[in-house]
Amino acid sequence: MSDPKSKFLEVYSLLKSQLLNDPAFEFTDVSRQWIDRMLDYNVPRGKLYRGLAVIDCYKSLKEGKELTEEEILLASVLGWCVEWLQACAVVLDDIMDNSHTRRGRPCWFRLPKVGFIAINDGILLLSQVHRILKMYFREKPYYVHLLDLFNEVEFQSISGEMIDLISTHEGAKDLSNYSLSLYHRIVEYKSAYYSIYLPVACALLMAGENLENHVEVKKILVKITIYFQVQDDYQDCFGDPKVTGKVGTDIEDCKCTWFVVKALELANDEQKKLLHENYGRADPASVAKVKDLYQVLDLQGIYAEYERETHEKLSEAIKTHPNKALQALWGRFTGTRWTVDRAGNAAGNK
Amino acid sequence: MSDPKSKFLEVYSLLKSQLLNDPAFEFTDVSRQWIDRMLDYNVPRGKLYRGLAVIDCYKSLKEGKELTEEEILLASVLGWCVEWLQACAVVLDDIMDNSHTRRGRPCWFRLPKVGFIAINDGILLLSQVHRILKMYFREKPYYVHLLDLFNEVEFQSISGEMIDLISTHEGAKDLSNYSLSLYHRIVEYKSAYYSIYLPVACALLMAGENLENHVEVKKILVKITIYFQVQDDYQDCFGDPKVTGKVGTDIEDCKCTWFVVKALELANDEQKKLLHENYGRADPASVAKVKDLYQVLDLQGIYAEYERETHEKLSEAIKTHPNKALQALWGRFTGTRWTVDRAGNAAGNK
Repeated sequence: MSDPKSKFLEVYSLLKSQLLNDPAFEFTDVSRQWIDRMLDYNVPRGKLYRGLAVIDCYKSLKEGKELTEEEILLASVLGWCVEWLQACAVVLDDIMDNSHTRRGRPCWFRLPKVGFIAINDGILLLSQVHRILKMYFREKPYYVHLLDLFNEVEFQSISGEMIDLISTHEGAKDLSNYSLSLYHRIVEYKSAYYSIYLPVACALLMAGENLENHVEVKKILVKITIYFQVQDDYQDCFGDPKVTGKVGTDIEDCKCTWFVVKALELANDEQKKLLHENYGRADPASVAKVKDLYQVLDLQGIYAEYERETHEKLSEAIKTHPNKALQALWGRFTGTRWTVDRAGNAAGNK
Repeated sequence: MSDPKSKFLEVYSLLKSQLLNDPAFEFTDVSRQWIDRMLDYNVPRGKLYRGLAVIDCYKSLKEGKELTEEEILLASVLGWCVEWLQACAVVLDDIMDNSHTRRGRPCWFRLPKVGFIAINDGILLLSQVHRILKMYFREKPYYVHLLDLFNEVEFQSISGEMIDLISTHEGAKDLSNYSLSLYHRIVEYKSAYYSIYLPVACALLMAGENLENHVEVKKILVKITIYFQVQDDYQDCFGDPKVTGKVGTDIEDCKCTWFVVKALELANDEQKKLLHENYGRADPASVAKVKDLYQVLDLQGIYAEYERETHEKLSEAIKTHPNKALQALWGRFTGTRWTVDRAGNAAGNK
């Protein structure tokens, strides 16, 4: 029997071939080849944790009962819908953030023949999610709930991206707008719902649950996302591009990260002035000054403390929670736990 | 009593205020102001024919019965959903086409503070359509059909935009890929479904109809769209920017228009060579050469003939069709009929 990840990837191939023959559109050969290549380049390239988490969570909700082939297929399809959304976000965010590399390769829009067609590809990915949902779930009693869920989560992540983009523009003029509460708001709306809540919510709907009875679970999942995002921010600033697959540019891009918010909290007037003068500038000397300040303020140490404490608190909350999907999700994602020792040396991807 | 258009615009204000207070997102003041401005700039600025057509079509299906206030409101809301989709297409296409002006003003992404945030605004507009549908139709028996309709139509127009973009890239290398059948395919998928079919389909669903019983209507609506698009192509090439509100760039952009397809059909080898050498180039001298060739081939005359004949044929087909929504839509849109006399002099917007 093949391992879960290969089985999951088989479902990707199935979905791709169905989308390339969607009767709602009359493909030209060139457009069919385009989508084929676009999907392969962007969809199945990540760690697939989000997608695999749907299957894990659904299993956990069935409390040990063996899943039928159909259940595995449907949970995998929903898993891929989450991955498709992720691909949409990646393709479009890379254009808006003017990024260069993603997962160790050029961003999709950077490819010579692609350019701004990537904008249309991004929305196509979004639209394909709904084509897939219709193909597999049209007759299910929870179909309309699935559509409402995806629509709400899409709206939330687009709105989150909006406050991220606008705040970054504002921040570039006046850094003092950045705060921990703004940071939390961006992470909650931009990432938590589509990326961490959605896999759990999909599994709950498949298991016949009413999402309104799981508001508490949603709150914990937002906290988990913030914990993950702080780790991402750490990697962007201190990670090794060879390991992370991308060159971090949060400082250059004037992003509202956990680190700049902490630095603003802890800096004296002179250090604040240094931040205001150097944060959000592309030249390496400015970036180095910001990183030096992070060092002086011992942000790696503070991060290590935060990471350890938060991990402990979240683990405890999840372990004692009656909803077993939380544990399943946590189990799938803690493979990405990124720790540093107290002195700030990266201990790597545990 | 206020006229239909002012009443329709009142519903826009209502929808905007509801979207600015959507409980699914925690707005910042800055983001609320942003959306307010973005919506006003992009949504209610067109001729609103598409939106108003939903109300016209619904009325026609009720065969003279007075509509209730609720029916007028719901038909208006669906009309605005169509206009919202149109705004999404306009915002994103202008970026991808590298356009400068739209409706006599700079394109949204050209505004100094906007730039690439317009990409996110474009998807937000798309997402808001589904927020609006949920707000007003969640409890209706046809809610799921509405969602399926919008999803399918969105998918089709994104796919149509894709073949347009890809063909234009290919066309830039080899114009001989352009043909009337490619032209029809682009118009059908890029424009017909979301722009002309959708208003009618919305009205049919509200009237309790099953869309599968109206396949013939869909086919006629595709033909109507092609007729409208040929007029658009005429305006882009020969229209007065003061009247059309935009400077046409189809020739510069190497677009697969009705005119270039006709020119390729009629040109001798030498004229074809001239087209291949000058079509799709930004310099005014090349554009002038293409326009001269159009003149030599009497394309304005051929257009005038096509316009007259097609108008007659379509009018007849619509008049005799049992579905009265077709007539209503035709009535709403023929205000845009763009005619030229046989000598090629624009007779203006009738």
